Amino acid sequence: MAKYVFGVDIGGTTVKMGFLDIQGNLLDKWEIPTRKENGGENILPDVARSIEEKLKKDNIAKEDVAGIGVGVPGPVSGDGVVHRAVNLGWGEFNVNDKLTALTGIKSMAGNDANVAALGEMWKGGGQGYSDMVMVTLGTGVGGGIIIGGKILAGSTGAGGEIGHIHVNDSEEKTCGCGNKGCLEQYASATGISYLATQHKKNWNGQTVLKDDLSAKAVFDGVKAGDALCIEVAEDFGETLGKGLAVIASVVNPEAFVIGGGVSKAGEVLLSYIRPSFDKYAFHGARGAKLLLATLGNDAGMYGAAKLVL
Amino acid sequence: MAKYVFGVDIGGTTVKMGFLDIQGNLLDKWEIPTRKENGGENILPDVARSIEEKLKKDNIAKEDVAGIGVGVPGPVSGDGVVHRAVNLGWGEFNVNDKLTALTGIKSMAGNDANVAALGEMWKGGGQGYSDMVMVTLGTGVGGGIIIGGKILAGSTGAGGEIGHIHVNDSEEKTCGCGNKGCLEQYASATGISYLATQHKKNWNGQTVLKDDLSAKAVFDGVKAGDALCIEVAEDFGETLGKGLAVIASVVNPEAFVIGGGVSKAGEVLLSYIRPSFDKYAFHGARGAKLLLATLGNDAGMYGAAKLVL
Repeated sequence: MAKYVFGVDIGGTTVKMGFLDIQGNLLDKWEIPTRKENGGENILPDVARSIEEKLKKDNIAKEDVAGIGVGVPGPVSGDGVVHRAVNLGWGEFNVNDKLTALTGIKSMAGNDANVAALGEMWKGGGQGYSDMVMVTLGTGVGGGIIIGGKILAGSTGAGGEIGHIHVNDSEEKTCGCGNKGCLEQYASATGISYLATQHKKNWNGQTVLKDDLSAKAVFDGVKAGDALCIEVAEDFGETLGKGLAVIASVVNPEAFVIGGGVSKAGEVLLSYIRPSFDKYAFHGARGAKLLLATLGNDAGMYGAAKLVL
Repeated sequence: MAKYVFGVDIGGTTVKMGFLDIQGNLLDKWEIPTRKENGGENILPDVARSIEEKLKKDNIAKEDVAGIGVGVPGPVSGDGVVHRAVNLGWGEFNVNDKLTALTGIKSMAGNDANVAALGEMWKGGGQGYSDMVMVTLGTGVGGGIIIGGKILAGSTGAGGEIGHIHVNDSEEKTCGCGNKGCLEQYASATGISYLATQHKKNWNGQTVLKDDLSAKAVFDGVKAGDALCIEVAEDFGETLGKGLAVIASVVNPEAFVIGGGVSKAGEVLLSYIRPSFDKYAFHGARGAKLLLATLGNDAGMYGAAKLVL
């Protein structure tokens, strides 16, 4: 029986490579550059070469490897077909087939946010839950939905694109996706800075918020008891809680797991989301837990590995 | 191999009983009263007796029956546990186990809206789609989500409770669920009447809308070119389209199938929903079809039967 598995998380700058045993212990990790030139044609061959080198170095037979899981920054259908990954220069092709052909090892790909959700379920903040929604609050807002322990990829790989839930009718600014009033415009790191800018304009009192209006500055201010920062956090929490409540009415998860850079603020973050979630959630779905992610940037490697197991 | 299957749809007044072959042809259907007294303790025994009578009358052996599927008007987990069905007087118990014990035939229960969704996928407006959301516009707004051909029941049976998605921050009226601004308050038959009442207050022109402000009257008016009715339909479509767009960003279905009494208005209904859906949906999920349900009140029987196959 196979003893090992590779978890590969392809990003726009580097590819995170993880080597795990099938119990999910991370035995080794390293990075290789993401070569995006020529439509990203070198990326999978580079991954394949790095895997071959690792196996050779450690004297491990391919028969001992259960498979290679891959997280891709773009929509991926359940069958492994990527539908354009702009950050890699990729068009549409079957990642599973291509990487299997290159390595002779079973390969399975998924969207990076979905794969990270699987990782948090397996070894992170979502352990013990099989119906779970991961919410990644980074530059944007990503999402990954796990139902019955499996990724909900969606019919065109857009399942869990929760950053683009419409939450505000009166927004005049356009979101990166082209719509107006998306959750991402208020709940991402960028969104929190946007809220801070708005609130600061109408603020006459004292505040620790000076030039740095980052999400980190806002939540540091919250912890220091700064009234403006608290107002911004309340606005953020009201909007994100409302968005999560909508998701709860649709997929009724056991838990939401909050990750991404913004989640480094810690438990205080959840305390601003919970009241709004409780206010807007349908009573039958209100029992969902709000939890923090624990794997950080390694979630994708763990989840990619889990994908093939 | 078993040749037949029962599809049972339990309602607050009557139980719809369907007898089908395993290809999904409805061979016979009848109704029995729903006896709700004493916490609805007679309902499943009545169903069991009616099934025994049918088998005896047609001289069919139990071995020829693949199973009994049941739709229940309340939250039902994937394992067949109902979590209170107020319209039947039921508390919490395992419907699968109880009906199997009563009949000696494999039984499986699901929420009625979810089961209707499965029916429309199998034999109705959603044929050919395995990732599908059924939207039932009746007195309330119900929903059923099908992913990979299977019901998304949710962790506490509240999956697909899309009538209680929050869509309006400024609503002052309370929804039946206790929240304010739920989709159901605008997109159900009751909701459309509510919108008609609101719009009529501020209307100075001519209109066919007199005392009857029902959803049917509104859409009859739309077909007759009545300007007030068109305004109401636009408001309805804007809100429902926005709600469906949110759902599309979460589960990314191939199609939405619209059923329930309001859907009798026909294709014109879809023409008011589509522009708003296209406006609010995330581009990666915008390709979803909007279709009409075709099975009417029989959807639950078909879907319940499909549940056990």
